[in-house]
Amino acid sequence: MRVSFFITMKEGKEMIVVVRADAPQSEVEKLKENLIKRGMEINFSKGVDHIVMGLIGDTRSVDLDSIASNEIVEKVLRVQEPYKKANRLFHPEDSVFEVDGRKIGGSAFSVIAGPCSVESEEQVISVAKSVKASGASFLRGGAFKPRTSPYSFQGMGLDGLELLKLARKETGLPIVSEIMSTDVLDAFVEDVDIIQVGARSMQNFVLLKELGKCNKPVMIKRGLAATIEEWIMSAEYVMKEGNDRVILCERGIRTFETFTRNTLDLSAIPAVKKKSHLPVFVDPSHSTGMWWMVEPMAKAALAAGADGLMIEVHNSPEDALCDGAQSLKPEKFDQLMKVLKKYAQIEGKVIG
Amino acid sequence: MRVSFFITMKEGKEMIVVVRADAPQSEVEKLKENLIKRGMEINFSKGVDHIVMGLIGDTRSVDLDSIASNEIVEKVLRVQEPYKKANRLFHPEDSVFEVDGRKIGGSAFSVIAGPCSVESEEQVISVAKSVKASGASFLRGGAFKPRTSPYSFQGMGLDGLELLKLARKETGLPIVSEIMSTDVLDAFVEDVDIIQVGARSMQNFVLLKELGKCNKPVMIKRGLAATIEEWIMSAEYVMKEGNDRVILCERGIRTFETFTRNTLDLSAIPAVKKKSHLPVFVDPSHSTGMWWMVEPMAKAALAAGADGLMIEVHNSPEDALCDGAQSLKPEKFDQLMKVLKKYAQIEGKVIG
Amino acid sequence: MRVSFFITMKEGKEMIVVVRADAPQSEVEKLKENLIKRGMEINFSKGVDHIVMGLIGDTRSVDLDSIASNEIVEKVLRVQEPYKKANRLFHPEDSVFEVDGRKIGGSAFSVIAGPCSVESEEQVISVAKSVKASGASFLRGGAFKPRTSPYSFQGMGLDGLELLKLARKETGLPIVSEIMSTDVLDAFVEDVDIIQVGARSMQNFVLLKELGKCNKPVMIKRGLAATIEEWIMSAEYVMKEGNDRVILCERGIRTFETFTRNTLDLSAIPAVKKKSHLPVFVDPSHSTGMWWMVEPMAKAALAAGADGLMIEVHNSPEDALCDGAQSLKPEKFDQLMKVLKKYAQIEGKVIG
Amino acid sequence: MRVSFFITMKEGKEMIVVVRADAPQSEVEKLKENLIKRGMEINFSKGVDHIVMGLIGDTRSVDLDSIASNEIVEKVLRVQEPYKKANRLFHPEDSVFEVDGRKIGGSAFSVIAGPCSVESEEQVISVAKSVKASGASFLRGGAFKPRTSPYSFQGMGLDGLELLKLARKETGLPIVSEIMSTDVLDAFVEDVDIIQVGARSMQNFVLLKELGKCNKPVMIKRGLAATIEEWIMSAEYVMKEGNDRVILCERGIRTFETFTRNTLDLSAIPAVKKKSHLPVFVDPSHSTGMWWMVEPMAKAALAAGADGLMIEVHNSPEDALCDGAQSLKPEKFDQLMKVLKKYAQIEGKVIG
Repeated sequence: MRVSFFITMKEGKEMIVVVRADAPQSEVEKLKENLIKRGMEINFSKGVDHIVMGLIGDTRSVDLDSIASNEIVEKVLRVQEPYKKANRLFHPEDSVFEVDGRKIGGSAFSVIAGPCSVESEEQVISVAKSVKASGASFLRGGAFKPRTSPYSFQGMGLDGLELLKLARKETGLPIVSEIMSTDVLDAFVEDVDIIQVGARSMQNFVLLKELGKCNKPVMIKRGLAATIEEWIMSAEYVMKEGNDRVILCERGIRTFETFTRNTLDLSAIPAVKKKSHLPVFVDPSHSTGMWWMVEPMAKAALAAGADGLMIEVHNSPEDALCDGAQSLKPEKFDQLMKVLKKYAQIEGKVIG
Repeated sequence: MRVSFFITMKEGKEMIVVVRADAPQSEVEKLKENLIKRGMEINFSKGVDHIVMGLIGDTRSVDLDSIASNEIVEKVLRVQEPYKKANRLFHPEDSVFEVDGRKIGGSAFSVIAGPCSVESEEQVISVAKSVKASGASFLRGGAFKPRTSPYSFQGMGLDGLELLKLARKETGLPIVSEIMSTDVLDAFVEDVDIIQVGARSMQNFVLLKELGKCNKPVMIKRGLAATIEEWIMSAEYVMKEGNDRVILCERGIRTFETFTRNTLDLSAIPAVKKKSHLPVFVDPSHSTGMWWMVEPMAKAALAAGADGLMIEVHNSPEDALCDGAQSLKPEKFDQLMKVLKKYAQIEGKVIG
Repeated sequence: MRVSFFITMKEGKEMIVVVRADAPQSEVEKLKENLIKRGMEINFSKGVDHIVMGLIGDTRSVDLDSIASNEIVEKVLRVQEPYKKANRLFHPEDSVFEVDGRKIGGSAFSVIAGPCSVESEEQVISVAKSVKASGASFLRGGAFKPRTSPYSFQGMGLDGLELLKLARKETGLPIVSEIMSTDVLDAFVEDVDIIQVGARSMQNFVLLKELGKCNKPVMIKRGLAATIEEWIMSAEYVMKEGNDRVILCERGIRTFETFTRNTLDLSAIPAVKKKSHLPVFVDPSHSTGMWWMVEPMAKAALAAGADGLMIEVHNSPEDALCDGAQSLKPEKFDQLMKVLKKYAQIEGKVIG
Repeated sequence: MRVSFFITMKEGKEMIVVVRADAPQSEVEKLKENLIKRGMEINFSKGVDHIVMGLIGDTRSVDLDSIASNEIVEKVLRVQEPYKKANRLFHPEDSVFEVDGRKIGGSAFSVIAGPCSVESEEQVISVAKSVKASGASFLRGGAFKPRTSPYSFQGMGLDGLELLKLARKETGLPIVSEIMSTDVLDAFVEDVDIIQVGARSMQNFVLLKELGKCNKPVMIKRGLAATIEEWIMSAEYVMKEGNDRVILCERGIRTFETFTRNTLDLSAIPAVKKKSHLPVFVDPSHSTGMWWMVEPMAKAALAAGADGLMIEVHNSPEDALCDGAQSLKPEKFDQLMKVLKKYAQIEGKVIG
């Protein structure tokens, strides 16, 4: 006689607890009583050679892990997603919002372009002008750079934000830049239009909570080893605090393949859209690490349903202080934008 | 004083041998003499605090692994790809060939469609007619099915091939079917138009060699843990024996992400096309495992530069004996083909 | 009102079908009737805001994938393992069996050692003698070599088996060698004492079935991308045909880490032992690809509960035709055996 | 005629730049001049059908990525490790240091044990006493908990540190606890004996730099997708600022295998020890996620050469607020310690 518990939580989380077939009856009773003691109500039971007991309870009192630690438990299966605010189940239509008068999501297809790192006034303004001319909607530029090596260029810091502001003034393009720690949060809220959380910070929960309390859109890049569920949970951290303007950005996951820097997971686009109402962007530059892959992957991202792209453009990649290998030259970016417009038309989307 | 050897093989393979910085001079000399003894010629040397010795030799006499086994060797780096026939370097233009009068590669975009498994005459003919009407160029159908469980349906075997032939006769669509072992090779050469090597057989080298000796196009699916280089090497096994009509088919790799069955690696398309001249197809059905992901991934594959698609279509997926979850119904396939034609037009390709 | 189906199969497989919360009642009814029509009996139902319907049925009539293809189904969860003969649930004690009078499993700790490839009579006999002197129980040697490149040494073939037989005659050590295809099965059954299935052939189901019909122990290496469950399922293929003498051999899985050739998954040892009664061996040579890692990983494997090891030993690794980098020299192997004996004593196991 | 550049950096970094075989001579000249313009000196050149140009330069002037962005460059290979302070090459003997009079590294084998989360005074003191009695050298306890879900228990915060201090006062065991952000750094420096950086914070470079400036030992857990090199680079961030007391702790990497929570990579122990002089610990609790795997993996870690372990112990795992499934009960921990002492003896190490 096998026994399973089907537990319905008040907040909508459901779990199934499968008991080992050789568990003594007395131990099964003890588990059942333990669950009842925590305020669970038994809901139904019956069976031929398998009993399923339904329980209704409160999430706070029962933890999946602590149930799994019971020696007679074979496995615990969770039925429903652990996120709420980001869940499409409770928000069936797509999230669409505005950033400085520019629409994100829905029929809009947004292109964020610019250099990996802000290096000089001349550089950032020159690139900003050229990507604007080609039809980009936002300017990207790194002021704080997470680098694997402490000996690599770490970005211009707050001075870099100043140069981005000059470029915004010159071109009117809103700014997207990456934040690495809460100590510069005030500056980012003041100066930046979309605050980017990098892949390495996707589970910097202290940072996510603070971003949830500010009134700026947040773009969360997927961590290199983050499942789709964990990625959405990071958005949930921000949304739980009251900030609903969250964008998810796929930028490649780490797999065994080393030809590309990472493996761009474009199936994450329909996957996220099935599970969540949040807009999904794609970064074809960092994920592949090679400029000649940006065009095919950018087109593919649009075709797969992405709401936008984040692309590195540099006026002289050979001289870039960082990530030159993956940067497009302005003329290549211009050609790409022309093709993207044709693709967008098929999908009924508008670029810029 | 650091020492490295730069070895140029006669067949174009180059390797760099980096010696440990603390290696005694006498051991370095011994390694050098050992290499010379195997017929290598010393080509140049010099330096300030690092010596690089250039050697020219014959592939057969030196093995990367056996050099690496020397205790003074820190690492061995290979410079060039180990494949020749499949290498774009020696065949700069795309491979384009014909299968029963239908072009593969170049400006052709080919769609292979049909049921995962051949189940009955009625089923396969009905699906064949409908996919043909929607514009598919080839009929797929599994007669021999590799299944993880010995208790699952293993396919109809040779009877399945007979039903596929009936469907071909009825519709004119050439047949694509998977071979699992050499003992049915004669039947496949006789009956099938493109012989498919499944992901699990990608490194069944005995099978690959035999396929290289027959005069039928071969489509090699990428193994779940196969690097792009290993995948091209499997094509090389077939081509080395004289069969040049090889198609590579991306079908997802195994990563930590479990939402999708596998992770479809669309960046493999431009990667393979950079390295090799062979046509690249994509299977969006097996890779994702979910029918509602087939459309976005099929469009993305075309946008990323694929030469064709392999799609599962079943008239009643709920009743399929295998892989129903990922099969499109004929009407959904028809809608997909309509959108694909628009995409193909942008890329200057012709479907069907 | 949410609905789930809890399906108990006659053969012990259970599954849970979770219906989308927004599914129309009529569609839920249709699914229920469809299941009943396939011979399922409704067993119980009830609930407050979630209905769980219990069903009892026959495996052959219902396929997990075809249920998942229904548009109202959110997910299908499988409760129990799909293997039977290899399942510890139905065979609680460890499998222990004999090969030529030598015990495998239980209190025995077996060491298989020898060269990667058989290269010459002198080489194989010399290595065989030395590993025997150090305490190895079995001689390994590759006659048929699966190589990524068609231009690499492919092994001596049947001639290699002859040399192994000479070494067995000389030393009394039973032979372990890898089979790549069914066409040489008769020779292997005749000549070899344990037939090895390599990682790349782990899902060569045609081969596995044939091995199940012969009366020789089979050692199945884990595929580079094989889950523990899939690996046990490959053992199930052999056992289903009547051959119970199966050994599983962990040899590293493919991950993002490239420092080691593969990532040796030692936690697979307790995992397999929890799920299955079969003996588990470990190959520290192929998994790491570096001779200096063999010792620590061999000791760790024993400590983690392995029943045996497979280790490459070569008298002059620098001259090996294959995989020299990972081969131990006889004197290093001898030192290793000495330490292993101390470890075995702690674990109450006997080597040799 | 192929061309490669072999570049020797002043700081010891070497790289090889391989030029595409079809690159026009004029472009190769341009690249060469570009390199010379950046202050590189040409060191040697010559060849038959392959030219290798040796260059000597300064790291700051040349970036691997910007060279790779040149269209004629086929690939760039880096020869040497990018870390210095953590590099065994420049510090051949093992790092051994003291923490509150207890030795870490060398002949010491240290066991850190305690609950996942600090939950109450009674809990932490009771566990501390029992792990001390069994021979643990350090007490672990989480006060700040990184949790995937914002709805999960997030730890007791600074109050948790107070309880740990009480437990230290009671038992004399130094405290190990995880820091999540720089805003509580002062409290950690004041209260904690070894500051732990969690897997998700391994590349929180802002945090690492600050930890480098304080005078407390730092234990850095390996990120779920971190290569061995990246992990050592995170230690380098701390060491560059002047803090040499760094421990690396393997805790499982993310792979396709889902039976275990993560895949414990024990081969990382000899790998790190080859490359770096830093002590390496292993956490068998978090990596496997299952209490019954802790014993075999703990023994294996010692056998593979680890300098210590970090193990979760909870007096009633069924009631744990976090990670109960992986916690050992005190009596199981006690048994484990007894076996570990036998293993340590073989390896000539002393526990506690």
